[in-house]
Amino acid sequence: MNGYRDLRVALLGCGSVGAQVARLILEHGDELAARAGARLTLAGIAVRNIDSPRDVDLPRELFTTDAERLVQSADIVIELMGGIEPAKTLILEALQGGADVVTANKALLAAHGRELADAAEQVGAQLSYEAAVAAAIPILRPLRESLAGDHITRLLGIVNGSTNYILDRMDRFGDSAEDAMRVAAELGYLEADPTLDVEGYDAAQKATILASIAFHTEVPVEAVYREGIADITLAQIETAKQAGYVIKLLAIAERITSADGTDGVSARVYPALINRDHPLAAVHGGKNAVFVEAEAAGELMFYGAGAGGAETASAVMGDLVSAARRHVIGGPGLPGSLHAELPILPVGEVSTAYQIMLDVQDQPGVLAAIAGILAEHGVSAASVTQSVAEDAAGQATLVIGTHVAREADLAATVEALRASSFVVGVTSMLRLEGQA
Amino acid sequence: MNGYRDLRVALLGCGSVGAQVARLILEHGDELAARAGARLTLAGIAVRNIDSPRDVDLPRELFTTDAERLVQSADIVIELMGGIEPAKTLILEALQGGADVVTANKALLAAHGRELADAAEQVGAQLSYEAAVAAAIPILRPLRESLAGDHITRLLGIVNGSTNYILDRMDRFGDSAEDAMRVAAELGYLEADPTLDVEGYDAAQKATILASIAFHTEVPVEAVYREGIADITLAQIETAKQAGYVIKLLAIAERITSADGTDGVSARVYPALINRDHPLAAVHGGKNAVFVEAEAAGELMFYGAGAGGAETASAVMGDLVSAARRHVIGGPGLPGSLHAELPILPVGEVSTAYQIMLDVQDQPGVLAAIAGILAEHGVSAASVTQSVAEDAAGQATLVIGTHVAREADLAATVEALRASSFVVGVTSMLRLEGQA
Repeated sequence: MNGYRDLRVALLGCGSVGAQVARLILEHGDELAARAGARLTLAGIAVRNIDSPRDVDLPRELFTTDAERLVQSADIVIELMGGIEPAKTLILEALQGGADVVTANKALLAAHGRELADAAEQVGAQLSYEAAVAAAIPILRPLRESLAGDHITRLLGIVNGSTNYILDRMDRFGDSAEDAMRVAAELGYLEADPTLDVEGYDAAQKATILASIAFHTEVPVEAVYREGIADITLAQIETAKQAGYVIKLLAIAERITSADGTDGVSARVYPALINRDHPLAAVHGGKNAVFVEAEAAGELMFYGAGAGGAETASAVMGDLVSAARRHVIGGPGLPGSLHAELPILPVGEVSTAYQIMLDVQDQPGVLAAIAGILAEHGVSAASVTQSVAEDAAGQATLVIGTHVAREADLAATVEALRASSFVVGVTSMLRLEGQA
Repeated sequence: MNGYRDLRVALLGCGSVGAQVARLILEHGDELAARAGARLTLAGIAVRNIDSPRDVDLPRELFTTDAERLVQSADIVIELMGGIEPAKTLILEALQGGADVVTANKALLAAHGRELADAAEQVGAQLSYEAAVAAAIPILRPLRESLAGDHITRLLGIVNGSTNYILDRMDRFGDSAEDAMRVAAELGYLEADPTLDVEGYDAAQKATILASIAFHTEVPVEAVYREGIADITLAQIETAKQAGYVIKLLAIAERITSADGTDGVSARVYPALINRDHPLAAVHGGKNAVFVEAEAAGELMFYGAGAGGAETASAVMGDLVSAARRHVIGGPGLPGSLHAELPILPVGEVSTAYQIMLDVQDQPGVLAAIAGILAEHGVSAASVTQSVAEDAAGQATLVIGTHVAREADLAATVEALRASSFVVGVTSMLRLEGQA
């Protein structure tokens, strides 16, 4: 058509995303050619088992089990197999052969992103992976390109739909944690093994990718501080609500300065309080959003579907068209810039406010003793609420909201509270994020 | 530094945005060089009056009144003068000379966007204008590139911060329209002549740009149907609130099919109802947001500052770095693709639901008569509420929510209601947007 050159596209993997990508390439050929400036030919689809059932009816002759051979003949390789191997070897082979690579493989990128980026840069190929974070939401390209002349200072992401669905049910419908988990599992929001989602591993992989791009610094996934939502109770959610907050599992990447003056990066994942009028508070159900704070741009938010075959395929297709244009125009791909090489600082250097719930002996002097413990650690209380009337055992529940302080000091404060004879137990400790 | 090549950047205009752009170029030289792969040298700043006060202290020797000469020596021209001339002539000269152009000039783009895009394409130069719509929010690049393999079906934008501020005050604080306007003017949200904002002209210019990019079709600003917010009353806002809606001035671009089966594009601006749990309902104050619906990606939203010197400068800087990269890599700029050439359909072909408020004679048969008028025009009522108790004159106020129908039928229905002897007056007619 119109003298467009042909580009051969190899698709590795044909699950729910791959099947949609194949469909879009086959159905929208003319439209894609007009947008890319080249005709995209689906050269083949590598799968483990050609006879497996697919979401989309695709021509049988496209399927092959010989991924390596398919990769060798391709101009652009789309990797949607998931997992580390053989995906990693195939991607490296593709890049070394000069093909561009589009992938949604967040686990691989979190573990070996730098190696892949270096391989791409050596031959001037393009490695892109918009679909790896927050599926359909265009976030990596805006961070890399639209904000290229600005300085990102902080990034708060709701990047795991399953856990957002669970927390949102608890907040909006008053479900217990167990009930919300059960419904999420029934609706397919949770994997058979929900640990990756619930314990925050999935969000940590995405935090790695986001922090690396935002701060031009390699952020290994092992350096991401991580807490999941497994221990979040309905009582915590209700207490948060009464104080005007909502609990969200956040992936956070932030430029911070340590106590000794070192400028660096913090990457962390934990359930945190955010103000109910913060834009992230309106992210319901399984949706994702990334809230970005930049020096010049101020506050931005990118919102949309964080999962789904067609939704994720949309992001893959954007990368595909972009890679095709590069082939048409010539010139090297956009390198994965890691020039800043900032130190990764431990979570102890982070500054936030805390909300601490504790059961205390209801006796004279308890408030003074608690205030003393806070003051000893350089932490000041912004509010103290006796949230539950004293019970039969002569106990009361206190909710303490602190001013912003260093995590290390706050953690030490909680330890000292636990050790105090007035304190029966510390029942909740949540950080408040999204404040100016 | 590091053998980077130098690129000469000419800045035309030094108002609140231009001054911030100059500051960022001068202050972040090394960082920009690392990101762009070239050193960006600010060759000069063309202004009308060198001695005018500026927001930022800039070296006097950079200023010139000879814009034409400055443009001739530049690799990249940033146009922030605003207005049609001399901006248009200078941009055309720059493009014809092979320079890339970055502009935030929405009025110029809305009026002459195609001419500028054609001039850029002829020489392979890049014309970019992320800052022209929703200032700091990366929206044009995601539409063009991230969604390049998807099909956008609808786009709802809160793209005028002044009117959003006014409507938000009325909704959240119960201000009258006059009070909200006064506060907006005091806080600098409104120009001395507020017509451009209040009557929806500014939003219509942005609708033109968004619709053209989303649908690869030239959408002249004259083809954008436009109503402003001048007639919106607190009573309408309160009635909307009671029904679970909020009123927002929306710029809408939509793929629609006309009654005769023609596939085309609708571009329109009017105050519309949206559900209070729609993500756009959480866009408060002077903020902007663009809600995008695409076939594969589903629902996306892009949120952030829609005005401000530094905020707008952030978008300009992103375009600048992108243009610089193109110079380094070589190859032509991304052309402004208008290949689809879809027909622009009149507002009468649009389908929405209506909310109609009318004062009626409180006498037997009135409801039947009104139901008859709706049925005659093929419009069915979803709800009828008597929102105000009958008054001394024997009148009552009805609020009718219709099902989705074609605008032409709804407009005819409203006309027929006005002509009915039972109807004292139609006091409000608002469309409901953002429904599936």
